[in-house]
Amino acid sequence: MHVTETRVRYADTDAMGVVHHANYLVYFEIGRTELIRREGLPYADLERDGLRLAVVEAALRYRHPARYDDALLIATAVTEVTGVRIRFEYVISLQASGRPLVEGHTVLASLDERGRPRRLPPELRAALEGMVEAGADEDR
Amino acid sequence: MHVTETRVRYADTDAMGVVHHANYLVYFEIGRTELIRREGLPYADLERDGLRLAVVEAALRYRHPARYDDALLIATAVTEVTGVRIRFEYVISLQASGRPLVEGHTVLASLDERGRPRRLPPELRAALEGMVEAGADEDR
Amino acid sequence: MHVTETRVRYADTDAMGVVHHANYLVYFEIGRTELIRREGLPYADLERDGLRLAVVEAALRYRHPARYDDALLIATAVTEVTGVRIRFEYVISLQASGRPLVEGHTVLASLDERGRPRRLPPELRAALEGMVEAGADEDR
Amino acid sequence: MHVTETRVRYADTDAMGVVHHANYLVYFEIGRTELIRREGLPYADLERDGLRLAVVEAALRYRHPARYDDALLIATAVTEVTGVRIRFEYVISLQASGRPLVEGHTVLASLDERGRPRRLPPELRAALEGMVEAGADEDR
Repeated sequence: MHVTETRVRYADTDAMGVVHHANYLVYFEIGRTELIRREGLPYADLERDGLRLAVVEAALRYRHPARYDDALLIATAVTEVTGVRIRFEYVISLQASGRPLVEGHTVLASLDERGRPRRLPPELRAALEGMVEAGADEDR
Repeated sequence: MHVTETRVRYADTDAMGVVHHANYLVYFEIGRTELIRREGLPYADLERDGLRLAVVEAALRYRHPARYDDALLIATAVTEVTGVRIRFEYVISLQASGRPLVEGHTVLASLDERGRPRRLPPELRAALEGMVEAGADEDR
Repeated sequence: MHVTETRVRYADTDAMGVVHHANYLVYFEIGRTELIRREGLPYADLERDGLRLAVVEAALRYRHPARYDDALLIATAVTEVTGVRIRFEYVISLQASGRPLVEGHTVLASLDERGRPRRLPPELRAALEGMVEAGADEDR
Repeated sequence: MHVTETRVRYADTDAMGVVHHANYLVYFEIGRTELIRREGLPYADLERDGLRLAVVEAALRYRHPARYDDALLIATAVTEVTGVRIRFEYVISLQASGRPLVEGHTVLASLDERGRPRRLPPELRAALEGMVEAGADEDR
């Protein structure tokens, strides 16, 4: 499981005084971006090669709110990889206390620049599949 | 089922040329806000009375992307109401063609200003329960 | 001067309980988009023809805050057009009271798809120049 | 001049493939937040004491676009402090090349929780005034 840190921006909050619920999808995105970067395959490079990873499914469970300026930990795991899809699972927690705030998953589909299904580049698929095994050992 | 319209802002899009996936949660929010307004109970008024409706669960299924300037229809239904929770279901479609783009649901919890559970105001609960019955007749 | 209406989304607010100041640039964008649409030249069509209008300068003066669910009026005027630049001026006010909230301007540069300067399409330039004259008569 | 780093989120981009112009105001906000934090006066703490710093004026000049995943440097300086106002100036540049992308300023007014003018807390004012002097020596 890959852990990255982010800090809540003022613009991420809403009039309820907490992070607007849509922004946890943005934090999930930061989590998987950093996980892929760690594998030496930055998503910006994959995009330059014509790959698009589009979110086709998402789910979130909100337990406690994050607030402005909170330092958050985003734990991200790859839990399934097929030729054209990747499933990521996430837990966002408060760095200070470790308290879990939001958890969820997203499923991403591999597309070409025109939005048509395209198989994952073998290098990326292999790297991600490697993480699934590791994930299965460590986290279940 | 209540239908409201919104138009995709340029700021809602991302570098993939389509609406960023987090923004459909914002469209869902517009849908339920307008549904509640139609009942004569604007959410802004409910907030002034100390009520907070916090999203505790959300799920989305993305079928086709929306693009800049698309006119979208947000169909919103109340599908469950308890003393402290409301479940809304949504279908977002293209106004021009009727093509469904994204569907999903959210569960909202009724809280007081300090974030503690608080029963829904009877008026709001009754109005929402009325819609569940109507929804069941028309849409299932 | 072209006037369009928009309503404050919950996601536009921040923990101060009012619209986050960055979002007025988004409202300005809605204003100029609708002004151009009224001329029969939707920006989405212009983009399909390879035109990009990029903001190169912006300024805002914040007098009073907008709040969640406020209906806002965005008044937009074209105040200068050259071969490659357009200057828009804006006043955002509360629909209910007419109270002005935020005013400002943006300068947009005409670019091609690769971000290089490109002269405005003659049709668009003529339409915009026509509005400058009209604006000078009516609004000054 | 205080320099902080931030990375462009995918959600910060728009369909033009670059950062949406409104988001540089969010980056400016990160810059001044970190500058104030460095002085040992986190804005979140100031807010808990009932202080609100509201943006009353902003201006930006966009020279080159930032793109997804770019590491940005936000240089922030305090250039004026009065009893109720602070002026910050910013330059955002690419970390990789040092290329300046966007520059601008904001003026913030000191308010109480109800939005009425309130003098800056002496501690904060003194800290900020100290930075103005330093800024004048080093940067002009």
